[in-house]
Order: sequence, then C-alpha cells, then structure tokens
Amino acid sequence: MSISIRRLDTAQADFDQQLEALLAWESVSDGKVNEIVNEVIARVRAEGDTALVEYTNRFDRTSASSMQDLELGQARLQQALNGLPADQRAALEKAAERVRAYHERQKGESWQYTEADGTMLGQQITPMDRVGIYVPGGKAAYPSSVLMNALPAHVAGVKEIIMVVPTPEGVLNELVLAAAALAGVDRVFTLGGAQAVAALAYGTQTVPRVDKIVGPGNIFVATAKRAVFGTVGIDMIAGPSEILVLCDGLTDPDWVAMDLFSQAEHDEDAQSILLCPDADYIDQVEASINKLLPTMERREIIEISLQNRAALIKVADMEQGTALSNRIAPEHLELSVADPEAMLPQIHHAGAIFMGRYTAEALGDYCAGPNHVLPTSGTARFSSPLGVYDFQKRSSLIMFSADGASEMGKVASVLARGESLTAHARSAEYRIKD
Amino acid sequence: MSISIRRLDTAQADFDQQLEALLAWESVSDGKVNEIVNEVIARVRAEGDTALVEYTNRFDRTSASSMQDLELGQARLQQALNGLPADQRAALEKAAERVRAYHERQKGESWQYTEADGTMLGQQITPMDRVGIYVPGGKAAYPSSVLMNALPAHVAGVKEIIMVVPTPEGVLNELVLAAAALAGVDRVFTLGGAQAVAALAYGTQTVPRVDKIVGPGNIFVATAKRAVFGTVGIDMIAGPSEILVLCDGLTDPDWVAMDLFSQAEHDEDAQSILLCPDADYIDQVEASINKLLPTMERREIIEISLQNRAALIKVADMEQGTALSNRIAPEHLELSVADPEAMLPQIHHAGAIFMGRYTAEALGDYCAGPNHVLPTSGTARFSSPLGVYDFQKRSSLIMFSADGASEMGKVASVLARGESLTAHARSAEYRIKD
Repeated sequence: MSISIRRLDTAQADFDQQLEALLAWESVSDGKVNEIVNEVIARVRAEGDTALVEYTNRFDRTSASSMQDLELGQARLQQALNGLPADQRAALEKAAERVRAYHERQKGESWQYTEADGTMLGQQITPMDRVGIYVPGGKAAYPSSVLMNALPAHVAGVKEIIMVVPTPEGVLNELVLAAAALAGVDRVFTLGGAQAVAALAYGTQTVPRVDKIVGPGNIFVATAKRAVFGTVGIDMIAGPSEILVLCDGLTDPDWVAMDLFSQAEHDEDAQSILLCPDADYIDQVEASINKLLPTMERREIIEISLQNRAALIKVADMEQGTALSNRIAPEHLELSVADPEAMLPQIHHAGAIFMGRYTAEALGDYCAGPNHVLPTSGTARFSSPLGVYDFQKRSSLIMFSADGASEMGKVASVLARGESLTAHARSAEYRIKD
Repeated sequence: MSISIRRLDTAQADFDQQLEALLAWESVSDGKVNEIVNEVIARVRAEGDTALVEYTNRFDRTSASSMQDLELGQARLQQALNGLPADQRAALEKAAERVRAYHERQKGESWQYTEADGTMLGQQITPMDRVGIYVPGGKAAYPSSVLMNALPAHVAGVKEIIMVVPTPEGVLNELVLAAAALAGVDRVFTLGGAQAVAALAYGTQTVPRVDKIVGPGNIFVATAKRAVFGTVGIDMIAGPSEILVLCDGLTDPDWVAMDLFSQAEHDEDAQSILLCPDADYIDQVEASINKLLPTMERREIIEISLQNRAALIKVADMEQGTALSNRIAPEHLELSVADPEAMLPQIHHAGAIFMGRYTAEALGDYCAGPNHVLPTSGTARFSSPLGVYDFQKRSSLIMFSADGASEMGKVASVLARGESLTAHARSAEYRIKD
C-alpha cells in the first residue's frame, strides 16, 4: 500500500489557499502553559537553587539532593570524549574543525574613520561575557547541536559558555557530553525546561546569570525564552524543521526521496516539500518514496510527517519555482540542479542553500561548516542562521573634534529645539565656538 | 532650595545593594495589559481594517470612517517637508546625510570561499522585503527617530518601508512627516498601539504584512511586539533612556550638568549617572545642577528624573570607574576625559560611546551619524544599536564538489548514525563514491 502525499500544482485555481494551509504553523503557548512557566520563573527567581532542585526532581524524575548533583565537571566531559569509539571521535573532531573554520569568517571587526575636521566615527565589536546553551535531552539530544551552538560563541570570544541539558531519569548522553568537551563548554548543568531558562536568565546561588540563551526546546522552554526576552538575549523561537527541494527533474529520484526523508524523520511535524516543473519526475520521486519507505528505521515518523505535512508541487518552470521558494522562505533549500550558482541572485529568503545534486542537506547538518541552527517556518524572511554575530555586539563610537562639535552643535541645536528638548540644545550649544 | 540627588561611593559597604536598587528596572506587562493586547491582536487578525478603524477611533479619539482616512500619501509628506522653516529643513537634511553616510559602512557583504576539493562555502546577504516602523505620537514624537529607524532600512535595501504613527485627536506632527519624506518611507498609516503592531505583523486588507517591526512605544506597543515576536522580527523592547558620564574631573562642570539634564529631560524615568574619582568635582557638578536647574524649560521633568533615578558616584579611580561602567552597560556612555581612545579597549559594554569633552550625547542623538536607537537598561551586555544589520539577513551557502560530498558523506554518516538519524546517514551515503 502506498503512502498518500499531497500533490499540488501552481496552475490549480485554489493553489494559494492550499499553500497557505500547507504552511500554516503556529506554536501557541496556551493559558495553562503560560501559567506554569510564569510560576516556575517566579519561584526560581525567588528561591534559586532550592526551586531548581525541586523542579528537576519533579519534572525529570531525578533524585538530586542539591545543585552539586546537577552539575557535571570537566573531568566527566573529558571522560565521555575519551570513551567514544574511534570513528565517532574522529568524525566529531572533523565536524568541529570545519564548523570552527567556517565560523571564523563570520567574526565582525571593529572599524573607525576620521572626517576632515578630525571627528572620528566608528563601531567597536565586543563579545558577550557569558552565554547559556540549551540542549534538549531525551530523544532529541544531538551532539551536533552542541557543536553548532557552542562553537560560534567560542569563536566570538565569549568568556564563559554554560550548557544546560535535562537528563530525564538521570540518563546522560555520552555523545552530547563529548561534544561539549570538544566545543569548549565551560560548565554543564543537568537542568531543563522553564526552570533551566529561568536559572540562566536570572542566576541562582550556583548557576551564573548569562547574557543570552540559545538553543531549541519544547513548548515550555520556548515560552520561558519568550518571557525572559529583554532580561537576556535569546535566539529565535524555533518551529518544526523543514526542507524544500527545488529540482529540475534530473537528479536521481532516490536521492531526492531520501533527502525528503532526512527531514521527515526528525519528528511528525517536520515538513518536506518538492518543487519541480516535471510532472513525470514527481511521479518518479513518489515511486522512490514508496519503494524506500519500508526500508527506513524511522519509517513510522517519516510516514506521519509526509502524510501530514509534505507536498510534491508541480511548478510551471524553474523561475516560478524560485519565486515560490522565496515566498515559502524555507529553512533548508536544496537547489538540485546543474548550475545552482546561476540561481543564487534570485534566491532572496532561505536559511541555508544546498547547491547542486551532491549537496545533501544531511552534509550541512553535520559537517559542511555552516550552522545547522536555522530560521524555521518562513522566518528566513527576517532572520539568519545562528552565527558568531549572535554572540558579539556593537558599540557606536563618536569622538568630535572641537571644530566638529562646534559645527554639528548648530545642527543639533536646531533639531533639539524643534523637538522642544532644550537641555539637549543647550548641551550642544556649550560646544559651539564663539 | 537645592535638589537632592543620590550620592554613592564605591567604598561604601553596601554599595552593591545600592547600585542594584539604583539600576532596578522592569517593564512589567500586568495581566490586564496582556489581556487587552491579546484581544486587540485577535480582533485585528480576524476582522482586519474594520477592527483597525474602530480601535483607532476609540483609542486615539479620531473619527475615521475607513482606512482611507488613516493613510497619508506621499504628497502630504512632501508638503510637510516643503513647509518647514529653512533652518529646520537644512538641519534635518544635514542629519539625514550624516546618518546615511555612517550607516553605509554597516552594510554586510556576501562572501564565498572554495576549498581544495572544489567545495564552496559562503554566506549570502539579502535585505528584508518590507519592514514596519513604529513612531510614537503625542509628546514623544521625534523626527530624529524617524530618520534613525528608516534610514538603516533604506540603506539595507529594504524594498518597502511602512511607517505607523498614532495621531491622537487627529493631530499631525509636521516635522515627523517631513522626516518620513526625507528618509524614504513608502507608506504612512496614522495608527498606533497594539492595533498598529497587529496590523503590521499579520496584515489587513489595507496594511501590508511586514517582515520586521522596529521602533519604541508605550507598554501596549511593547507587549504587542513581544506577542508577535516570531511571526515577525522585532527590535529590542526599550526601557527608559539613560546616560552614564565617566569624568576625570576636568571637564567644565556646567557641561556635565547639562549633559545629565539632556537625559533627564526625556521623561521622569530617565536615568543620569556620573562616575568620577574626584569628590570635589562631584560637588561642583552638583552646584552646577542647582544653579542651572531653575533656568530649564523642562525643569519639572528633569527634577523628578534626577531625584528618582540619578546618582553621583565617587569611584576610587578611573579604572574602577571603567569596570563599574561595564557592569552597568549603559545605553549612552560619555568618556569626558582627555584621552578617551586609550580607554576604548577596556570598554566592553555600552550602546554608544561619546568620546572626549566635546562629544555631548546630544550631538549623537541628532546628527553625528551613528544611530540613536540603542540598547537600554543594561541590555548592551547582549545587544547593539539599531543598524543596517537589523534589516539584512544571511543565508548559508554550501556547494559540495563530487569529491567533497564523498569525503564528507563518510563523516556525516558516522555522526548521523550516532544520533540514530538513518535517513540522514543514507542521504549522505548516496553521495559517497564507490
């Protein structure tokens, strides 16, 4: 029996509505979630470690008696790294090396320039002092995500990187700890949920307050991040992962089917979309899907994901496919074509662009170098992959010469008086030469 | 009668607590505000223009009969610009020119590099399609803020800039409209509050949906921005404005007093802080404050602001002053010293740094060039001035050669299998050469 996947065609009269329904996704924190999260945050702020230990024992079914039981030392991380099978360790090291090398190129540099009258303007770039990385526990605990979150912070020059990872029933993930050792994480607390976010945002007796919290989590984590936004910086609130393959119809259909699977296997809400101008090719991909699906270890998840959220979309031509891709603003975009570079100038919105038939998204997820933390659910319209720039910030530099202050003081004075801000005006006027 | 301003000394035993009390600020959206904002957003999403017109008439006491009455055309903006007094127009044009020139230097550039095996990695930078700028109405309607919000978007290459500005009782601010004309704003709606934010985030029949919303507003605006964060991008949620003057004790005390006033005159919650190692000098500044205060147009606001939130702090030396400044992470930092450049490497956290005795903050507020939208309330620890980078986003570029895909496919396969993501592994393995 073959799986039924949504087939759409841009020529259909109701295509726009169908597309909207396909893409609709809203992560709603209902009243109950908000209430729980607000209570957790309030208690962690008020009681600190005591509340952390209690919540962790309750939600993660652990039996910690103090925060000491909820911190892992560097020796433990190193032990995990040393305990890895040789091939895993080599692969993790290779990935870390490539991710680090790519991110080195993202480092912002301070700049200054001096005007004719001696006035200097510029921008100074500095790293954050301390950041927190949330790593999900349980089935979605990915060592690659530890690298992708911690390495950009490390490259940015962040002085202290704090990782939190829940360990339900106290189960540790050795690969995650090994990745933390490799990525230069400074401290690891086995905390999760809204209580971990609250601890990082406000600090407790044991957990130091951070400047920014990054990393994905469940609805409680996302809601807590939204609540503490402003007290600390946060990255995006992530939705389910998605891939859009834009194919000219000449890639091996098995490859494209497997690329769609690689997204669908993440979870039931993941979304896989194929755009192609060739209806026959779409049939071939569908045939590959049906052929390969029974061989997949994570068949059940893939099947639900494809049935609920996937689509095979016939477009008029590659140009229309590109326009549609921009409209969707996918997290992952595979340009499965002969000459992807020629298409780049037309791609306006995408988290990461995987170019050419050889560039499977899976390569980018692990070891190409660019980050795999990417804007989901169309947020690539306004946001970027996680990067070094997320851990640096800028300060404007302004140094007026006596001449410059005198000249600009006149301009500022007129504008300030126009806004009725006369202290501003008089402050500027003091610097005007007689 | 002299005004009483908090005097602190880092040598005091309870200095840390005093400092914490001084800096404490939390913008709390209480339950009632959240409820109102959520209802406004829900109705604007459901009913569109109808809800917008109704809310605007109710909250801004206008009598619009349709959205046509709530949009201003380019001709109206141009009329405002043409109607300005010559000195104001010249000053506004000078400010716009300098702000544009500075921000041109912030433009990010796409980059690529090719590895030995032909694999290409890079980062493509693109502007957002459409952004929304919230400009407060009433007493805090500042034309300079229109420039500071719109020009970076314009420089970034944003295709359409939508401005919303409430006009209570239908009163328009000609300087604000003139600034919109100068800054290249494409459409202006006379909307405000949570309803304006909702319209920009979700779109209505008349107001187009934007990708990001920037600009300050009252507690309803801030709460609405937090609520729509994720659906669209937002800038920081701003607190009251603050200045920290770090002075060696050799600047004219009248100048420093007026610089403190220029912050205090914004509103009663604004914060002005002086750090100086010289107690006599602090006395002189206090004397200047008492001498000048009776001459100030906005004396009442300044007095309340200084009494509630200002502090004159004696530090042991300039080094300690610098460390304390980093701890405070001020929005505006004046280095009122002879050699401010020597201090720069030690300044880790500040929104904008005004260097030297001539560089009054007021010059930077209007026409130096750098942005005056800056991180408040210590958020300079993790965020930056508004800039061109806020209106651009990045896409990762990955193009593997056949050789590169084969080599990296092996690494990805090991890591994917370590995470039990076998579709990822098999997708990568397809690209491994036999």
